[in-house]
Amino acid sequence: MIRNIKVEHLHETPIEKQETELVERKGIGHPDSISDGLAEAVSRALCKEYIDKCGAILHHNTDETQIVAGRSRPEFGGGEVLKPIYTLLVGRATMEFDGMEIPAEAVALQAAREYVRNTIPGMDLERDMIIDCKLGTGSSDLRDVFTRDHIPMANDTSFGVGHAPFSELEQVVYNTERQLLTDLKKKKIPGIGEDIKVMGLRENDDISLTICCGMVGRHVDDMDHYINAKEEMTEYVLDLATKYTDRTVSARINAADKVDDGCDCVFLTVTGTSAEMGDDGSVGRGNRSNGLITPSRPMSMEATSGKNPINHIGKIYNLLSTQMARDVVSAVDEVSDVHIKLLSQIGMPIDQPLVASAQVIPEDGANFAAIRSEAEVVIDDWLENITKITDMVVKGELDTF
Amino acid sequence: MIRNIKVEHLHETPIEKQETELVERKGIGHPDSISDGLAEAVSRALCKEYIDKCGAILHHNTDETQIVAGRSRPEFGGGEVLKPIYTLLVGRATMEFDGMEIPAEAVALQAAREYVRNTIPGMDLERDMIIDCKLGTGSSDLRDVFTRDHIPMANDTSFGVGHAPFSELEQVVYNTERQLLTDLKKKKIPGIGEDIKVMGLRENDDISLTICCGMVGRHVDDMDHYINAKEEMTEYVLDLATKYTDRTVSARINAADKVDDGCDCVFLTVTGTSAEMGDDGSVGRGNRSNGLITPSRPMSMEATSGKNPINHIGKIYNLLSTQMARDVVSAVDEVSDVHIKLLSQIGMPIDQPLVASAQVIPEDGANFAAIRSEAEVVIDDWLENITKITDMVVKGELDTF
Amino acid sequence: MIRNIKVEHLHETPIEKQETELVERKGIGHPDSISDGLAEAVSRALCKEYIDKCGAILHHNTDETQIVAGRSRPEFGGGEVLKPIYTLLVGRATMEFDGMEIPAEAVALQAAREYVRNTIPGMDLERDMIIDCKLGTGSSDLRDVFTRDHIPMANDTSFGVGHAPFSELEQVVYNTERQLLTDLKKKKIPGIGEDIKVMGLRENDDISLTICCGMVGRHVDDMDHYINAKEEMTEYVLDLATKYTDRTVSARINAADKVDDGCDCVFLTVTGTSAEMGDDGSVGRGNRSNGLITPSRPMSMEATSGKNPINHIGKIYNLLSTQMARDVVSAVDEVSDVHIKLLSQIGMPIDQPLVASAQVIPEDGANFAAIRSEAEVVIDDWLENITKITDMVVKGELDTF
Amino acid sequence: MIRNIKVEHLHETPIEKQETELVERKGIGHPDSISDGLAEAVSRALCKEYIDKCGAILHHNTDETQIVAGRSRPEFGGGEVLKPIYTLLVGRATMEFDGMEIPAEAVALQAAREYVRNTIPGMDLERDMIIDCKLGTGSSDLRDVFTRDHIPMANDTSFGVGHAPFSELEQVVYNTERQLLTDLKKKKIPGIGEDIKVMGLRENDDISLTICCGMVGRHVDDMDHYINAKEEMTEYVLDLATKYTDRTVSARINAADKVDDGCDCVFLTVTGTSAEMGDDGSVGRGNRSNGLITPSRPMSMEATSGKNPINHIGKIYNLLSTQMARDVVSAVDEVSDVHIKLLSQIGMPIDQPLVASAQVIPEDGANFAAIRSEAEVVIDDWLENITKITDMVVKGELDTF
Repeated sequence: MIRNIKVEHLHETPIEKQETELVERKGIGHPDSISDGLAEAVSRALCKEYIDKCGAILHHNTDETQIVAGRSRPEFGGGEVLKPIYTLLVGRATMEFDGMEIPAEAVALQAAREYVRNTIPGMDLERDMIIDCKLGTGSSDLRDVFTRDHIPMANDTSFGVGHAPFSELEQVVYNTERQLLTDLKKKKIPGIGEDIKVMGLRENDDISLTICCGMVGRHVDDMDHYINAKEEMTEYVLDLATKYTDRTVSARINAADKVDDGCDCVFLTVTGTSAEMGDDGSVGRGNRSNGLITPSRPMSMEATSGKNPINHIGKIYNLLSTQMARDVVSAVDEVSDVHIKLLSQIGMPIDQPLVASAQVIPEDGANFAAIRSEAEVVIDDWLENITKITDMVVKGELDTF
Repeated sequence: MIRNIKVEHLHETPIEKQETELVERKGIGHPDSISDGLAEAVSRALCKEYIDKCGAILHHNTDETQIVAGRSRPEFGGGEVLKPIYTLLVGRATMEFDGMEIPAEAVALQAAREYVRNTIPGMDLERDMIIDCKLGTGSSDLRDVFTRDHIPMANDTSFGVGHAPFSELEQVVYNTERQLLTDLKKKKIPGIGEDIKVMGLRENDDISLTICCGMVGRHVDDMDHYINAKEEMTEYVLDLATKYTDRTVSARINAADKVDDGCDCVFLTVTGTSAEMGDDGSVGRGNRSNGLITPSRPMSMEATSGKNPINHIGKIYNLLSTQMARDVVSAVDEVSDVHIKLLSQIGMPIDQPLVASAQVIPEDGANFAAIRSEAEVVIDDWLENITKITDMVVKGELDTF
Repeated sequence: MIRNIKVEHLHETPIEKQETELVERKGIGHPDSISDGLAEAVSRALCKEYIDKCGAILHHNTDETQIVAGRSRPEFGGGEVLKPIYTLLVGRATMEFDGMEIPAEAVALQAAREYVRNTIPGMDLERDMIIDCKLGTGSSDLRDVFTRDHIPMANDTSFGVGHAPFSELEQVVYNTERQLLTDLKKKKIPGIGEDIKVMGLRENDDISLTICCGMVGRHVDDMDHYINAKEEMTEYVLDLATKYTDRTVSARINAADKVDDGCDCVFLTVTGTSAEMGDDGSVGRGNRSNGLITPSRPMSMEATSGKNPINHIGKIYNLLSTQMARDVVSAVDEVSDVHIKLLSQIGMPIDQPLVASAQVIPEDGANFAAIRSEAEVVIDDWLENITKITDMVVKGELDTF
Repeated sequence: MIRNIKVEHLHETPIEKQETELVERKGIGHPDSISDGLAEAVSRALCKEYIDKCGAILHHNTDETQIVAGRSRPEFGGGEVLKPIYTLLVGRATMEFDGMEIPAEAVALQAAREYVRNTIPGMDLERDMIIDCKLGTGSSDLRDVFTRDHIPMANDTSFGVGHAPFSELEQVVYNTERQLLTDLKKKKIPGIGEDIKVMGLRENDDISLTICCGMVGRHVDDMDHYINAKEEMTEYVLDLATKYTDRTVSARINAADKVDDGCDCVFLTVTGTSAEMGDDGSVGRGNRSNGLITPSRPMSMEATSGKNPINHIGKIYNLLSTQMARDVVSAVDEVSDVHIKLLSQIGMPIDQPLVASAQVIPEDGANFAAIRSEAEVVIDDWLENITKITDMVVKGELDTF
């Protein structure tokens, strides 16, 4: 069956030429990101359990997690959590298959605890955090086994959105958080917490980064240490940015700090995340599946994390449209920007979206007819191989936030 | 102090001329919308309580609510909820002021129960739903009293986004849900449930609406009744659309129904919301503050509902930018489309955003210099009177989802 | 099969002749009693639901309820609850029968809310109390349908205990709480709360009652009113006691009140129960099934409330042994006191206890051989008709606390 | 001030001469006992925290814990928990002292997890059990600091009860559970689970023990292994009993097993406790503070575990009366049995009970006047040194269940 693929020539000022651009990334220790991470970790663990026990991924959606912030008393050199963070894992899972009961909640609990342990090493799971779980079963008609001998049917009428390539600002914002955590923290400043929020603003050729980073008290001796760390981080960030842009970049870390007034007014944590003190979190409120929040770009509201990777459009089409967009950009010449939107119709095969829309901003003077036909091939090919997304999710090859 | 207002000429195919457009609205009985509504109802009740007892709105953010779906057995003529929906109200609130304890959780509970009673009349709060509550206190530096003698300081570095005017499709989608519930249900088809999701797709001049509407079993006698109701609804929707567009409109209601196979496969509910059976919900996952999800438009990820209306940028700037956009369109000639983005900096006065960006797509041949200066006045004026947003929220004059 | 009934002559100072006697009753609004009442109300509602839908009572045990106290600010003339009481209904229930799902949690929720509404009228269920529910299914071998064509098998190896007759002190203590609530409160002092604890001490012929009674603020205008109410209550109690004893009786109400120091130090409540402020509660921690705590008498630790009335020994044998004891006393002459203990063996028919032990303190000079044979008949007859206990429970004819 | 100590000559058939005697012990892995243990572990940890941080034990009562059973699939050689056990720690604690916040809930959580880890080694805390926590603050007048320069005032009008010496049956029942776990399990049969319930019945000189013991699947290879283990356990128990009695003893382990019908019908667990599958638990429902349930002896309903050891009568007087009874028996000649009851009055010093009643059954021909005066000395001396109980509790020298 021929797919409804629409490649449109979009006449639009390309993002790099727009005067103002805003990009945000919530780091992996932000309460919303922790929720995303938990939701996805639980789904992956369930996928594995279902495959191990039943030979196929069964229906589930664990794309809801509520984090209720705790209370803490951070201090240089230490501090302590006063009231544990409360986390409620929520979702749907198949609990029984062919007469066998599946330990969905036990698997979810274990996966969640392991995820936190690996992601927020400053969190003492024995006293700082309670992880609770309420997984229900789904509506009956959705509990059918997903089988692999046919293309799954869409679970809902919804859509996914993706774009490529990343603008300079998008690259800067994304990599700032990633590198602070995976490079600078590991090599030099253990006091960097996982709760890093990067807000990037570009006004013409000036980029300003506002970075909010909860430092970990036990690794920061005193105020001097704290101030030095911020200076090193700033330097690191500015240096890093030069890899992605020639524009002017400025950076402010923890802009709300009031150093003169004493310790209370700097962003210090016990665990590395502000969930310890007043910041609640939930799934799907932060980064889109490409890792960013980009108000100047098309976005989907669907939470990608935690949804089942078999037939949940809110997951598959978000991941897929981003892959498609990247492949269009790399495979098709003369494309400046591409936005992909995929819309499903409930009950129809997921490789047959109601519409697969690509809006292409071509480079000046490009041959749009050629672009269209090449882009169509890329898109059609991905739809033909849509279950590859499922496989990549299960293998953990795709980030969801 | 002069405000950083940037009005930019955006060269972009106006939305009505783009080939493909997608718009979605989750009705007030969708689990995500119920969460939004609860969050906002709790915030409004707290505002009232704080004003009554303390003379000013105190710090709070109740923008987190987790709905864990129940189980139900819907049937024509009745049905019953088998496992109650579990709802957890989450957030921060000031519990003590000047030695007086504030009954924040009791107020929240009452407001939430009242909201559900008024919004989902088919929900029997005695047996169908559990409402639980975990409100904590905020981080200490945020617990200061909000005073009205100065402009509040931004709680965070974040942004709000708005656009105007609504496209034809946006109007159709928005009003379809609104009118089905406030008009057709009241006058003629009581079986229409509150959980209506409208997905609109425009391909050039063809609009197709996919409507998902949970019917209420007690008001639907049998399958014939159900089918007739769907037909009447379809007719109503198509007729309604002609008020907003001359384009061709088609509509499908409950596309996944399989009538031949019997009752199990139509979208019947006991209470009017799918939260009774398998659909979890949480705040900020659905409609933006203008009531829509619009992937072709700039959007913010911030949940507007439940945040305090004094200094929470995620609420104020979303509401404000939408108001600004609407006023720019109505006050300034020759504007085809305008997108507003407002970015705050933590700790700075909220009437002084880091940037207030307006991207204007003018009509062909418009005088952009004039547009710019007039738009700047509108924007500056709104910022000058930013606390008006607070007042409108408290009075319930602004919808948040 | 002959039953193992042992009637023993117990040589013991009868209770009325012991020098010291202690008796306690926790009134129906005491947090432990509310838990008991909720547990039993839920069980009764489930019994009714099972009978209506399945024609027989199915397996369940809802003998666990945890009340987590709230916070309140009582005051003369009013007051308010600051933090709602949290109540968690816990237990096991059959959720599915013959392919039909049973709404066990919805039924439990409704029964619990109705119970509180009827029992603690000062509790505003819209804002003062959260009722949550976690009912699980039982272990598989216990989920069998209870059928009525044979005697049920004991669910466990456990025992029930009862005694008769009530001593004078027992009568005084029991009726003090009952009459204050059902007579004095209704006729004259609406400020009497449901949370009344009566502690009775007899030293030879002196009885002293220490009564703790949470008064309801909205019905008590001021301190004078409060003091007057206490005086009237004292007078009433002393007068009431003369119906049950000729001994000297003294009574102190709210002994911890410190009137000179102001309002904080009297026992005032908003709702009528101390669960609103600091007193948690749970099932089986208060009165035994005869309504009293009697350390000088044999007692069982089994919580009677909430257990299924078909085969749960912890319920049936406690209720049965009390009925047996009362019948022995009324049917057999010359019995001063009788203590009954019934011990089951898991898996054996409940009318065949491992032992049915009656320890009889005969009156002086009694013919014990006659007592033995007559008592045996009473006991054997009750065992023969043991399912009558089930019927009485279902009809609500037997109190459980 | 002279204390109101009453030593009474009780004319009663001594327990060993009564025809029927019933004694029960719920082992440390029984769901009710786990609740008791958690409650006490939390209280001890809070005592330590308060002493460390504030120099004195502050007000708390954590004598409520609700265990909601999970689901499991035990099997020989392994098995798994399907749905985690949910445990809610409940109680009151001082959260703030002298401007310092105390991490009461974090301390409680840590203590609870550590307790389970040490007590039920087969429980995998990463996936088999959720520990949640709701500690509130107490009523304001109780939040005063406990100071050590005067005798604390009783928190309530309530009583404690104790007796000595243990009868033969009491010794047998108590030690059966203790030795199976601390000796036989360690030396020879690792498959013995912690959930052991021993019910002892004595009819004249015949003792029968009904033992219910959840075996741990991973340590039991198959049905033969299981049957052999039960035989070894029976032999061990019978041998052990000879240390405490010359009476005839018989023992049945897991009387409900049905071996012919296959594996489902033996008492196998994954973790060692039936809380994994259908058995809920809560504090104060099992053993009294002497470790036993003894319907033929005076008992208190007060839960000893979890209450603060400073002024909570329900804890102190239960522990104290048992110590007193044991000392009377060891220090005073010719005492066959002694029952102690201590009754407090709210607000009075705890060393001045309203009455301290000792009922003594002397040996035949004993000089009761001598017994009385010697017993009074023992009792008075303990009251004089009542805070020693507090110290012993804090040091962990006194069991509470």
